[in-house]
Amino acid sequence: MFIISLLSDFGHNDPYVAEMKAVILSINPQARIVDITHSIEKFSIRMGAYVLASVAPYFPPNTIHVAVVDPGVGTKRRPIIAETNRSLYVGPDNGLLMLAAHKEKIINVYQIDNPKYILSKVSKTFHGRDIFAPAAAHLSRGTSPSDFGLAIQDYVFPEFAKPHMERGELVGEVLHIDDFGNIISNISAEALELYGVHEGDSLLVTLGSKKLNMPFCSAYGEVPVGTILALIGSSNLLEVAVNQGIASKILEADVGDLFCVSAVDSS
Amino acid sequence: MFIISLLSDFGHNDPYVAEMKAVILSINPQARIVDITHSIEKFSIRMGAYVLASVAPYFPPNTIHVAVVDPGVGTKRRPIIAETNRSLYVGPDNGLLMLAAHKEKIINVYQIDNPKYILSKVSKTFHGRDIFAPAAAHLSRGTSPSDFGLAIQDYVFPEFAKPHMERGELVGEVLHIDDFGNIISNISAEALELYGVHEGDSLLVTLGSKKLNMPFCSAYGEVPVGTILALIGSSNLLEVAVNQGIASKILEADVGDLFCVSAVDSS
Amino acid sequence: MFIISLLSDFGHNDPYVAEMKAVILSINPQARIVDITHSIEKFSIRMGAYVLASVAPYFPPNTIHVAVVDPGVGTKRRPIIAETNRSLYVGPDNGLLMLAAHKEKIINVYQIDNPKYILSKVSKTFHGRDIFAPAAAHLSRGTSPSDFGLAIQDYVFPEFAKPHMERGELVGEVLHIDDFGNIISNISAEALELYGVHEGDSLLVTLGSKKLNMPFCSAYGEVPVGTILALIGSSNLLEVAVNQGIASKILEADVGDLFCVSAVDSS
Repeated sequence: MFIISLLSDFGHNDPYVAEMKAVILSINPQARIVDITHSIEKFSIRMGAYVLASVAPYFPPNTIHVAVVDPGVGTKRRPIIAETNRSLYVGPDNGLLMLAAHKEKIINVYQIDNPKYILSKVSKTFHGRDIFAPAAAHLSRGTSPSDFGLAIQDYVFPEFAKPHMERGELVGEVLHIDDFGNIISNISAEALELYGVHEGDSLLVTLGSKKLNMPFCSAYGEVPVGTILALIGSSNLLEVAVNQGIASKILEADVGDLFCVSAVDSS
Repeated sequence: MFIISLLSDFGHNDPYVAEMKAVILSINPQARIVDITHSIEKFSIRMGAYVLASVAPYFPPNTIHVAVVDPGVGTKRRPIIAETNRSLYVGPDNGLLMLAAHKEKIINVYQIDNPKYILSKVSKTFHGRDIFAPAAAHLSRGTSPSDFGLAIQDYVFPEFAKPHMERGELVGEVLHIDDFGNIISNISAEALELYGVHEGDSLLVTLGSKKLNMPFCSAYGEVPVGTILALIGSSNLLEVAVNQGIASKILEADVGDLFCVSAVDSS
Repeated sequence: MFIISLLSDFGHNDPYVAEMKAVILSINPQARIVDITHSIEKFSIRMGAYVLASVAPYFPPNTIHVAVVDPGVGTKRRPIIAETNRSLYVGPDNGLLMLAAHKEKIINVYQIDNPKYILSKVSKTFHGRDIFAPAAAHLSRGTSPSDFGLAIQDYVFPEFAKPHMERGELVGEVLHIDDFGNIISNISAEALELYGVHEGDSLLVTLGSKKLNMPFCSAYGEVPVGTILALIGSSNLLEVAVNQGIASKILEADVGDLFCVSAVDSS
């Protein structure tokens, strides 16, 4: 039994997500469908790529991930299947799938153009239902990725900002604000380790135009309620939080803001 | 294995939806439950009927659809099962089910009043849990629709506005604003075909009190980001959108607003 | 086949809920996962406990309920399994599980500390994924609750306010505002029965600082649209509602507000 995961920016008010599920179940009534989220910010390929790459490693091998954040639907952007050593990714060729696929080992990327595996009438506004959902359902029934079309080399790879050193600071940016208001950066635990700061240190964090001192903790509850802290979150990235508070509101932070770190000189 | 779909205006903050699922699984642990949406605007029978009718054709035959938008719960309005040549619909007799059922072939409509298939204690505020969920679960186990009660003829059929011609214009209304802010009308691709406008034409659209010229495209991405366009959406209805923008905010459109179309005279 | 239910305050924008599901399915691909809700107010143990206790009785016996509203994650608060005569409850030892468990018969409460059943790397911010989800998945495969750790007696029991009599009035508080804006009190149908008021009576309700007369009805539709009424809701608790209106907005009510009832003297 194969698992098919779904991620999109479709929201929950419309028939769109259910139409994808209905198409999948019409082709493979045994498919096991799991929603990742349908609340990706509209058209935010970056947020979609981040969430997909965060969650994919926890799924069992052979999971088929369908992701649809697709501002170019109906234009020349291609529908693709990315096959890795662990999973299959189905969606638009706009970089959405590749952050997750790249964390595994990419074997091949195929363009989907075999009409046999596409709904007979394809809307130019909803490839999620008419191309991606049927592709996932056929994959879950054992169709080989190479049956969908030719392998391509020139797929889009996302160019997301990477943290770097500048004047002794680790310079990154805000990658995601989670539902608790935690401000998640693109700076990994490994980067901090290399930079030489550790839990227990005091950090100087630049968030947009604000400079803030805060303790580098290991759990939210290590500081009093309402206090700012930094910690490594569950995706292994540095985040700024407020214990039981909404850090993004208190600090007026947004995705894309500058997020720099240096250790406070305690001398 | 039968699929049971659920649609309601219950939202996601309360125990209500899960109580329906728990009741279904208590009666039929094998039931396959698929959410359509629980974000129908409160008490909007029209929006519920539209979403249900949009999505139902994509489900496999023999799907059991449970829909609950039910301002009259606990009053004299009857609980019903509509049996078509393709599906079963379970819900209140207020028109909610009939737009979808009518697109198939209605065989019979039954009132639910056999106490054998109703929870022993029926709340007057939550027939979704106490009547509709058990009915769907029993149907999924093979109980015949006619076992639930007598066939009725006088069920409520929704009287939703239909588009018509007036002084050379096609006159409809706004049927739905989707989560992207796309403004979906009740004017179908077929009506436009008959009226004689085609993709590539320039349209004059009246939206409420605004008159707007826009291109009639086939995909959002055919115009620059931020530009207004008209196109046939995935439910085969004419919509007004803004490429990667929120048309309903920009144009201040609402469900029920006038939505008229005529071709721009290019002579 | 076992059912695993999930309840949390994680919302729907992040990878968190899907990570829990992915972990469960990696350990037990046959597990049947049902969402209760992920929209519990952030850190509101009381709302989580109320929703869990409302819905649990409708699930089949042997359901495994995983609930995560966990402001103390990563601190000394223990992860636990509560075993009752009917269900298993998995989550933090902060009272969240105990309102539901107490309505059944608590057999034992175990601390989870057997590393065999915990993910190899435990984040200090996300026990839902690293401890609770794996525990539920192993329970669903037949692992005995006592294999997870020692039984404890000193688990946290929630001290939620109970209604009482004061100067001839029944004095309670607002327990929950549902998605329709219905104002749900902690006063049960049984308490009202004992107090001696019945459907059909006219009630004087004190809500915060407001005093209001209203009819005690059995269904929303028994009063005209827009009219205030009191009734017993589907969780068997007294609520104040407005037929097809949003009572919590009209009456400016909030969780925790005073909610007192007395019968109107009709003499």
